[in-house]
Amino acid sequence: MRACRRSLPPSLLPHNSPSLSDRISPLQPLMPDAPMSIVVVKLGGAAITDKSDPDTLSPSIDALMDGIAHAYHQVLRPSGRRLVLVHGAGSFGHPPAKKYQVKGGWTAAAAGDEAAGDRVKFGMALTRQRVLELHLAVLQRLHAPDRGMPVLSVSTYDTVETDGGLVGEASGARLVGRVRQVLDAGFVPLLFGDAVLDRSLGSTILSGDALVYHLAARMPAVRRCVFVTDVAGIFTQDPKRCPDAVLIRTMGCREADGGGGGALDADDAASVDDVTGSMRSKWQWAKRIVTDAVQVREVAICQGSDSARAIGYEQGDESDAAGDWTVIVR
Amino acid sequence: MRACRRSLPPSLLPHNSPSLSDRISPLQPLMPDAPMSIVVVKLGGAAITDKSDPDTLSPSIDALMDGIAHAYHQVLRPSGRRLVLVHGAGSFGHPPAKKYQVKGGWTAAAAGDEAAGDRVKFGMALTRQRVLELHLAVLQRLHAPDRGMPVLSVSTYDTVETDGGLVGEASGARLVGRVRQVLDAGFVPLLFGDAVLDRSLGSTILSGDALVYHLAARMPAVRRCVFVTDVAGIFTQDPKRCPDAVLIRTMGCREADGGGGGALDADDAASVDDVTGSMRSKWQWAKRIVTDAVQVREVAICQGSDSARAIGYEQGDESDAAGDWTVIVR
Repeated sequence: MRACRRSLPPSLLPHNSPSLSDRISPLQPLMPDAPMSIVVVKLGGAAITDKSDPDTLSPSIDALMDGIAHAYHQVLRPSGRRLVLVHGAGSFGHPPAKKYQVKGGWTAAAAGDEAAGDRVKFGMALTRQRVLELHLAVLQRLHAPDRGMPVLSVSTYDTVETDGGLVGEASGARLVGRVRQVLDAGFVPLLFGDAVLDRSLGSTILSGDALVYHLAARMPAVRRCVFVTDVAGIFTQDPKRCPDAVLIRTMGCREADGGGGGALDADDAASVDDVTGSMRSKWQWAKRIVTDAVQVREVAICQGSDSARAIGYEQGDESDAAGDWTVIVR
Repeated sequence: MRACRRSLPPSLLPHNSPSLSDRISPLQPLMPDAPMSIVVVKLGGAAITDKSDPDTLSPSIDALMDGIAHAYHQVLRPSGRRLVLVHGAGSFGHPPAKKYQVKGGWTAAAAGDEAAGDRVKFGMALTRQRVLELHLAVLQRLHAPDRGMPVLSVSTYDTVETDGGLVGEASGARLVGRVRQVLDAGFVPLLFGDAVLDRSLGSTILSGDALVYHLAARMPAVRRCVFVTDVAGIFTQDPKRCPDAVLIRTMGCREADGGGGGALDADDAASVDDVTGSMRSKWQWAKRIVTDAVQVREVAICQGSDSARAIGYEQGDESDAAGDWTVIVR
């Protein structure tokens, strides 16, 4: 076990709040003709499933769905902001994807051994089926009478075709076009990580995190992204091991790609005990988003119990500081 | 109750078998380089759900799935023929679609009353959710270890956008392109009737029967279509009322659009007691298919218990006549 560190790299110290010019006064509601503002929310596999048990929903999934419905009906919709939801594959999609090596595709396997290729193909079909079951479970909860959200799917598999695991221009445009169409018709689009057909590999996996990135990078109206997971955010140290671990409320990565003194790049991030495993991946996606999507003001990482506040949060809220979650800014 | 008739219109009398030139000898198996031949099978809502009970599967769904898996693994795949499956919405999709008037869309409703429009929108979301549950149930059964079919969805909603309920060129091309892509990758595409976005109406319903028609009309490799339902086919009279009703094994509709003496057009069809309700609709789709899709040799209508034989049937089979189902030819 690594020792708990007492000092932080400079870039992990609390970051200045965004400039005043970015704020919207709480007394100045969004006008109906204000530019559309979209919040993209990722419901992580860890938040909606029990990752230790295949094909099992998280016991707190209903509380999370309540939080999302509250944020949508009480906060976002009245203020003219729009919502896009993305969910992960969690313990439904990951086990078959891993077992059948769907991410690597079947073309290499099939080249030497047709049966091996067929096995990956069947694994792709199975992975999609499991993801679809999780998708249906989320959809049914969001449509439940006490939540009543007008949610329509935007299916990654049906919209995106990758090449070597990458989302090309045409696929990216189709994904964004479909999300826009569903939004403009008055619905909440619900996307999800899934197995997709790949030009060169045969199949691959496109994660929910990657979808959030593509939407943020390609849709100028996306202002905030929120990753809902099973921990409160990124801590100074692993909170499970170090009792004095502190939640980092704001992290900057302005110089991440420049290699500057305070830069927090992937290697630096590894020096923060907690930015490992799934949190390391979240941090890397968040950094990519604020780096590449210049219109995104911040990316929040929060746990399910804070999701309603974190999703509805708007800069300029009476509570000047962010809540009990981590916000990544440029 | 109408009296049982004893005489048949000429066009309902047993039709001549297709010409010899259309046959493939049973001693002459399909060559690997023979033109691809596709069978499109519609699993009707009446065959996979209990139409009298919302959200309920048919008690015979597993037997039907066994029949399909048998036809695929034992007959079609070994002979180089390909399979496309389409399922209906049955008692999952129809009740919400009807309750919320999804087929008519929301634009007219929303023009005068935003809440009314929102109600149709929510109904569309709900209809899709119910259809997705049925789709998942079918998918899971086809993927089950004892059936092991490499089935991938082709989602109507994600692929087709209608205008005034009609499938335009671009949507039709996308639907066919996606089916081809999934087939060429070595999978069995599974389509399904669903609610779709419509340019002018907002939403509408695209039935599984309509999907079969579009595939047959646009894919030159489609040679046969099979509608699996809960009755054996089209009878001379309603078999539930008339004990001497006879199953019509072959029906011709060559002159259907010409108004000739023996023509069996929609009005004539109504004079056959059984060609009413869902069978009337099946008959009309079958007639449209053999009229518009010149490469389709026949459309069969059968019940679930005959599905394996009806799906695997090939002209030139040792049993020269068709089986215990109705075949519609040009």
